[in-house]
Amino acid sequence: MTVGIIMGSKSDWPTMQHTAEMLDSLGVQYETKVVSAHRTPHLLAEYAESAKDRGIKVIIAGAGGAAHLPGMAAAYTSLPVLGVPVQSKALNGQDSLLSIVQMPKGIAVGTLAIGNAGAANAGLLAAQIIGTHNTEIQQNIEEFRRKQTETILANPNPAE
Amino acid sequence: MTVGIIMGSKSDWPTMQHTAEMLDSLGVQYETKVVSAHRTPHLLAEYAESAKDRGIKVIIAGAGGAAHLPGMAAAYTSLPVLGVPVQSKALNGQDSLLSIVQMPKGIAVGTLAIGNAGAANAGLLAAQIIGTHNTEIQQNIEEFRRKQTETILANPNPAE
Amino acid sequence: MTVGIIMGSKSDWPTMQHTAEMLDSLGVQYETKVVSAHRTPHLLAEYAESAKDRGIKVIIAGAGGAAHLPGMAAAYTSLPVLGVPVQSKALNGQDSLLSIVQMPKGIAVGTLAIGNAGAANAGLLAAQIIGTHNTEIQQNIEEFRRKQTETILANPNPAE
Amino acid sequence: MTVGIIMGSKSDWPTMQHTAEMLDSLGVQYETKVVSAHRTPHLLAEYAESAKDRGIKVIIAGAGGAAHLPGMAAAYTSLPVLGVPVQSKALNGQDSLLSIVQMPKGIAVGTLAIGNAGAANAGLLAAQIIGTHNTEIQQNIEEFRRKQTETILANPNPAE
Amino acid sequence: MTVGIIMGSKSDWPTMQHTAEMLDSLGVQYETKVVSAHRTPHLLAEYAESAKDRGIKVIIAGAGGAAHLPGMAAAYTSLPVLGVPVQSKALNGQDSLLSIVQMPKGIAVGTLAIGNAGAANAGLLAAQIIGTHNTEIQQNIEEFRRKQTETILANPNPAE
Amino acid sequence: MTVGIIMGSKSDWPTMQHTAEMLDSLGVQYETKVVSAHRTPHLLAEYAESAKDRGIKVIIAGAGGAAHLPGMAAAYTSLPVLGVPVQSKALNGQDSLLSIVQMPKGIAVGTLAIGNAGAANAGLLAAQIIGTHNTEIQQNIEEFRRKQTETILANPNPAE
Amino acid sequence: MTVGIIMGSKSDWPTMQHTAEMLDSLGVQYETKVVSAHRTPHLLAEYAESAKDRGIKVIIAGAGGAAHLPGMAAAYTSLPVLGVPVQSKALNGQDSLLSIVQMPKGIAVGTLAIGNAGAANAGLLAAQIIGTHNTEIQQNIEEFRRKQTETILANPNPAE
Amino acid sequence: MTVGIIMGSKSDWPTMQHTAEMLDSLGVQYETKVVSAHRTPHLLAEYAESAKDRGIKVIIAGAGGAAHLPGMAAAYTSLPVLGVPVQSKALNGQDSLLSIVQMPKGIAVGTLAIGNAGAANAGLLAAQIIGTHNTEIQQNIEEFRRKQTETILANPNPAE
Repeated sequence: MTVGIIMGSKSDWPTMQHTAEMLDSLGVQYETKVVSAHRTPHLLAEYAESAKDRGIKVIIAGAGGAAHLPGMAAAYTSLPVLGVPVQSKALNGQDSLLSIVQMPKGIAVGTLAIGNAGAANAGLLAAQIIGTHNTEIQQNIEEFRRKQTETILANPNPAE
Repeated sequence: MTVGIIMGSKSDWPTMQHTAEMLDSLGVQYETKVVSAHRTPHLLAEYAESAKDRGIKVIIAGAGGAAHLPGMAAAYTSLPVLGVPVQSKALNGQDSLLSIVQMPKGIAVGTLAIGNAGAANAGLLAAQIIGTHNTEIQQNIEEFRRKQTETILANPNPAE
Repeated sequence: MTVGIIMGSKSDWPTMQHTAEMLDSLGVQYETKVVSAHRTPHLLAEYAESAKDRGIKVIIAGAGGAAHLPGMAAAYTSLPVLGVPVQSKALNGQDSLLSIVQMPKGIAVGTLAIGNAGAANAGLLAAQIIGTHNTEIQQNIEEFRRKQTETILANPNPAE
Repeated sequence: MTVGIIMGSKSDWPTMQHTAEMLDSLGVQYETKVVSAHRTPHLLAEYAESAKDRGIKVIIAGAGGAAHLPGMAAAYTSLPVLGVPVQSKALNGQDSLLSIVQMPKGIAVGTLAIGNAGAANAGLLAAQIIGTHNTEIQQNIEEFRRKQTETILANPNPAE
Repeated sequence: MTVGIIMGSKSDWPTMQHTAEMLDSLGVQYETKVVSAHRTPHLLAEYAESAKDRGIKVIIAGAGGAAHLPGMAAAYTSLPVLGVPVQSKALNGQDSLLSIVQMPKGIAVGTLAIGNAGAANAGLLAAQIIGTHNTEIQQNIEEFRRKQTETILANPNPAE
Repeated sequence: MTVGIIMGSKSDWPTMQHTAEMLDSLGVQYETKVVSAHRTPHLLAEYAESAKDRGIKVIIAGAGGAAHLPGMAAAYTSLPVLGVPVQSKALNGQDSLLSIVQMPKGIAVGTLAIGNAGAANAGLLAAQIIGTHNTEIQQNIEEFRRKQTETILANPNPAE
Repeated sequence: MTVGIIMGSKSDWPTMQHTAEMLDSLGVQYETKVVSAHRTPHLLAEYAESAKDRGIKVIIAGAGGAAHLPGMAAAYTSLPVLGVPVQSKALNGQDSLLSIVQMPKGIAVGTLAIGNAGAANAGLLAAQIIGTHNTEIQQNIEEFRRKQTETILANPNPAE
Repeated sequence: MTVGIIMGSKSDWPTMQHTAEMLDSLGVQYETKVVSAHRTPHLLAEYAESAKDRGIKVIIAGAGGAAHLPGMAAAYTSLPVLGVPVQSKALNGQDSLLSIVQMPKGIAVGTLAIGNAGAANAGLLAAQIIGTHNTEIQQNIEEFRRKQTETILANPNPAE
């Protein structure tokens, strides 16, 4: 396992599965787990503190509303932590985004876009981080990027 | 000590001292401590988990930006927790407010206004909570309220 | 009765029933009533001023839009008042939240999250307040919290 | 007295004096008073309920933050009520504006712009309302409008 | 005709018909017309400039998005103008609200809430303005307000 | 004169002079005038309707708050109209921006950024429009762009 | 071809087809192409740099979210560039709008409203730009504007 | 060099120097350069495309307003890119934040907080990324984190 994907609730899975799918497509191994900053704070501490010893290189945390999971995971580890703001009901993820991105100096979270696109990109960015020292993953990313570009070049007509 | 006032940084004190002053004026005993959710997460767990045994009845937590302190304190105790959004530099406390108030079902934070007024009112609300079972504090609150009303009634002319 | 639940309109009940359900689950007695700050201001004054003598310990007020009910209830009593911002149609509860939380110094409202989660948490926080002097309620809360944690620990797989 | 100007605090006077100045310039008589929805709710009820019998035709209420004064004044009278959102510290009057304008169906507040311009225009709109049945005031308004137009026409060069 | 209701497009009618219904229920006569600030600016000038001579006492203008109709109507008349922010598609009426309420000093628009509630209240406020010099309308308003209060008092149980 | 620069008030000149300076630097002739949508609506109609016959190719309108000037200018002409949101006091130009950009289908305003940068870019965009049929202006723009690029290339060290 | 319509993704076509339809109705020739700033940056450079030589007079770019397409197109050409903020999922186009309109001094994008109205108006504004030197297009615009006005004048009753 | 720090303008350096200082304190080598997405797009392409071959492991890009630099850097490289929203004048960095974080699926930017705290944390996160394969950097980070925690523990009194 090189990436740990955690989320505050099962209801975040429809968003966070886009992280898993991206990592699958790039050949990066990962684990997934429900860990709640508010309802299981001790589990979160234990999970984040032990992550490095279990071989995890990057933690990806998704949460909505007063989204404390990414920042608290970052508080318990020196591994890079990426945060995914899950789209919330009333405020459409504006609360999730600000709760994740506006971290104080000294504990960092790399924040992605609200919702599915951000979840997929969290997987991509984690792969890019791993790819800085893993040629195979690096090549997979470049292949993914090449195909992505070619798909547009091959279908330039918007109305088709 | 019946109220514990915590804040994420010494820079929050100019705001949070209004909580202390309100509690002083209402005759409620309190303690103050810098406890950071992000930089001292174990201290926060220990502080909140031990608060009830130390006789604390209400915890008041002030924080700015991605303000996780009130919600994480609430995650570690069954005491009532009140949150004060400290006015942040770029977003004027909108990030602090949403990070504190938008808690998920199951862990609650009673949130006050952004900045000094909210800090003072956190002290007042804590006193009101204690006052539900303490006649002296209750009388102090009613005296405070009476004076507050009389000050306006005695000075009705806005231009004076 | 130890908790009074009021709301500005019957249309707030689908939100505020989550307060009632939480109080039921925690063994706290409560009463519910439609009281409008704008359409029945005298009833509101009478309700809030008489609440303490009727044995009420905490008032929970839910309202949407220019939500004046929690703040005006607080103006008429020295009991702790909790406010629930009901999700409004055009602005998704942003107006409700700001109208409730941004109280001036001297009259406090402990504000919860917008919508159902906030309504449930208002019940939880009211129980926590009562639990500071009621061992049975306190134990019910801790049991609720324990189950909440165990549910997550027992179901860690988000995709199941 | 035909217009009653009320405000929640003396600190609102630097804004609300623009209402008074506009009414002075248009020849409309008025009274001014500090009346707080939160700290003097009974005074507000009494003030608004007795306004019509005292000859008041329009009430103008200025308030900031969780600004309940205009809406609560409207709850106690059938006179037209105009609301002025005073610019608040943290949120620049966005909270004041939403707390005043987003009234529910059945109790109306005619809301003006945030701050000094809104305060002046509240005076102007009150005069326009009175002017619908008062030829002299009506002529004063038209004279004010004419001069306002002429000032621009006479000074068309922005750089002078 | 004592009230003129104008709107920028037929698509605003589902909102603005609430103004008409309120005026009907209060016994106030009115006319309705589609007048667009952007697409029929000369018609708007002519409509607003001639309104007083046609006996109109209050103009109510509803518009959405970059809502210029209320402010431009006010530019062409010294009658009181009330503005209704119609709920827009992308921004839910936040653009409509700010475009209507943030008028500069010297030209005033009394702004109501976004959408149907605001439209109904525009009718109510117009009636209140007319009622300052019309005993019958004034009595109709008080009867409306009384019934509104009684409806709540007669149905205090939110869950029924 | 090929560009007409109008603004609602002399207080907009510190912003709009950046438009004039940009046009000067690109060799485009222009006129400047204070024209208020609200206080001089007839002047605005006359100005915009006669602009084409006076040889104007582009109108640039700057305004703040409920900024109706650009949209109303566009209502009176078929020339391209560019709008500059002037930074307002309370809302920092968010109201100006939305009032200008959110035009309904059928009347268009090309909107630039809030404040000085937007004012300068309005001049640049007007020059680009004129440059589509004027080789000299076109060359001036390309020279401006080349210098702008070279300035950065020649000073790549941010700390110097 | 005198107008180039580009968009970041085929999913933007339901919005951007309103640009095409407007240009069709005004007799302006155009080309459409999917060009992504992020996924095909070299194609974008090539497209924008060669546009003038292909006879393009105006580029219209539509994009959503972190919408970089209009600004980057403007970076590669001295032709006028118009930007259409496509309505995004979580933030309703507020992100698209700010990403397009808030350009720094020196590179300009004329920004239209969020969504379909803005897309149609981008076509209209492009035609107005071309119409400054093309009598036929100019006449088509005036005919379009005349019909638009007449449609309202002929159907003044909102309830019909 | 293992980290490349770029920014759109020299005016971003007061913010971005906090990135440099953090990297200095953690023993990470870096280069700094002014590269503008809008004014030097070819330089940006060249910079980002050649970064990996020059040994760069992480690119940090800071920009304000319509901040396209981080996203466009990411479009030209498969290295991880971190974005710092520089606090803008009118909108306090809300535009910068949304322009950077709301990237579409397929091109990722890890976004930090607005302003100085975010700039410092970009350096910290870059070091954490490099630390996943560099024991010395990893130890420096843990030492930095330890001291940060100890500073709070040693100074728990907020009022001192």
